[in-house]
Amino acid sequence: MKIVIAPDSFKESLTALEVAEAIETGLKKVLPEAEYIKVPMADGGEGTVQSLADATKGRLIETEVTAPLGIKITAAFGISGDGKIAIIEMAAASGLHLVPSEKRNPLLTTSYGTGELIRAALDKGVQKVILGIGGSATNDAGAGMLQALGAKLTDAEGKEIGYGGGSLEQLDKIDLSGLDKRLENVSFEVACDVDNPLCGTNGASAVFGPQKGADPHMVQQLDKALSHFAEIVERDTGVSIRDHAGAGAAGGMGGGLLVLPQVKLKVGVEIVIEATQLAEKVKDADLVITGEGRMDAQSIRGKTPVGVAKTAKNFDKTVIAIVGCLREDYEVVYQAGIDAVFPIIRHSAPLDEILKQGRENLVSTAQNVAKLYLLSK
Amino acid sequence: MKIVIAPDSFKESLTALEVAEAIETGLKKVLPEAEYIKVPMADGGEGTVQSLADATKGRLIETEVTAPLGIKITAAFGISGDGKIAIIEMAAASGLHLVPSEKRNPLLTTSYGTGELIRAALDKGVQKVILGIGGSATNDAGAGMLQALGAKLTDAEGKEIGYGGGSLEQLDKIDLSGLDKRLENVSFEVACDVDNPLCGTNGASAVFGPQKGADPHMVQQLDKALSHFAEIVERDTGVSIRDHAGAGAAGGMGGGLLVLPQVKLKVGVEIVIEATQLAEKVKDADLVITGEGRMDAQSIRGKTPVGVAKTAKNFDKTVIAIVGCLREDYEVVYQAGIDAVFPIIRHSAPLDEILKQGRENLVSTAQNVAKLYLLSK
Repeated sequence: MKIVIAPDSFKESLTALEVAEAIETGLKKVLPEAEYIKVPMADGGEGTVQSLADATKGRLIETEVTAPLGIKITAAFGISGDGKIAIIEMAAASGLHLVPSEKRNPLLTTSYGTGELIRAALDKGVQKVILGIGGSATNDAGAGMLQALGAKLTDAEGKEIGYGGGSLEQLDKIDLSGLDKRLENVSFEVACDVDNPLCGTNGASAVFGPQKGADPHMVQQLDKALSHFAEIVERDTGVSIRDHAGAGAAGGMGGGLLVLPQVKLKVGVEIVIEATQLAEKVKDADLVITGEGRMDAQSIRGKTPVGVAKTAKNFDKTVIAIVGCLREDYEVVYQAGIDAVFPIIRHSAPLDEILKQGRENLVSTAQNVAKLYLLSK
Repeated sequence: MKIVIAPDSFKESLTALEVAEAIETGLKKVLPEAEYIKVPMADGGEGTVQSLADATKGRLIETEVTAPLGIKITAAFGISGDGKIAIIEMAAASGLHLVPSEKRNPLLTTSYGTGELIRAALDKGVQKVILGIGGSATNDAGAGMLQALGAKLTDAEGKEIGYGGGSLEQLDKIDLSGLDKRLENVSFEVACDVDNPLCGTNGASAVFGPQKGADPHMVQQLDKALSHFAEIVERDTGVSIRDHAGAGAAGGMGGGLLVLPQVKLKVGVEIVIEATQLAEKVKDADLVITGEGRMDAQSIRGKTPVGVAKTAKNFDKTVIAIVGCLREDYEVVYQAGIDAVFPIIRHSAPLDEILKQGRENLVSTAQNVAKLYLLSK
């Protein structure tokens, strides 16, 4: 019997690998002879670096980067075990959590640090970069990231423009001739789960600006600045980013990345499924177990368990989800290929205690799932 | 496919029938064609009257009785659908919850009201009384109950003694000639899950007195009073109650009841299993679902799910428990015949909210149990 365990992390409680290990422990109490394949998963959001580093037996590398408001911080990215793939989360260098609430101002915040992370990855000689762009503090269309990689963004007087979405108003010219040459030989897969365009009412500034600290006036100013940026980009590089689906992700980072030579915006979980060779692993499995910290109606929108289920259902496998919590509207996941779902909480307790009980609750639930599964065989 | 659903109540949340109905609702989403037999269960403790009334399509009857400190209250007992069985919980008339904390004094509290409930049941012409004696406020060896049923308990001057364990010191004579004659033709099954003797260090006063408000001095006084009572009972009626296993239950109520003509002390859940004809119902079932509000290591000591499991295992049936909460040490229930256990909580919330979500959580859990059960068929 072969069982593939491919869960996401349980946020604030356990990494995906820890979740997989706990599930394995529980299943093994009932099915000690089975073969277990643990595949730590992610959806391109928080935890993707850790999961893919774990899944590929890779490692984390720390480097100094520029935080959204310009100060220097240490941030980490992952390298796969074979050294060929870098895994980067934009939030590590340019995340909203790096800016205190009262200082959040997307006119000023830059994605420069993410560019530095990419450069550090190039220094490691990778062939591919997987880049998750969720949770950013920025609304600069990735201009800072491009600057860090060697692009020249200058104003009418030929001077380099400053950091932040606000500075894009001064942009007069983009010169990509100084762009890091190594980018030509490295493919980028950008985990991008929204299809917002760069500008307008569904654009980066209007939809995501407010949660980054933009008031209505700033939203207008930023939207105009990003529109101007798109115009200059098209004129100077020939790349049309304005209406590209996903260009509006991460404050326009989705758009800015399109300027680089080999970039594809993809659904996050699909990137992870490919990077972990999940299909290969589930095709001869007898049972697939997945899971995530919270399952709800949103789970069918590109979250890990549903991605895993889709892959498993291509081979007609049974898929059971074990989850941290289950919200009222979760039942739509049945149509998305999840055969049964079991939440792990065993008794009422404050949330912080429940988060601490994650491992033992997972072990217990997995054990009972295995018992019932086996029983009825 | 035939499925028997035989859960206990979920205390402070749902009656056993409500639990069974919710489980049925969840199972039916997956197995609409199955035949469902709902058997509300209990273990002789709180909820037994409601469960057995529901299980037998019976009804509740209210009557006025004497509360532990002498005031009159309205209390209910159950009558089975066929009118042959009365179900009484001692706590309804003589329960600790009927006495405010500051007034708890087992020297004074009487079991008289329970005797009145029995008399009211006899008035209904029942052939059998099922009596649960948990949760009492009394330590009077059932003397008040005997008085209510016509026994004369007199002091040296031939005067009726007063209420409460303290008055037993004055007892000089017991005369059963006035005992309600109908008691000779009615069998009593007393749900009694402890085997404490009447007196001594493991006796009623020492073990259960303190939780009813007795301080160390009162415990000594009560133990002496009960010992004296046992002596008079043996001399005047020929019944030896002092060392009978269970005589110490409910402040000696177990002992006092032995004076009646047709009384058997039994394990509560076994009485309920017999009264509900559970064995008959599970013998041709394909699956048995049970449950209780809280499952832990104590669950193997005469609690409902383990009683149900034992009955089901006599016919080699699969038994799944669905529970309100599951404590760390629950795994001993596997050895007692439970094949798999699933707690129902779906997300962290304060206890009062979790109690309110009981029904929907049960439906959801039962649905997923059915999905997994069916899947692997």
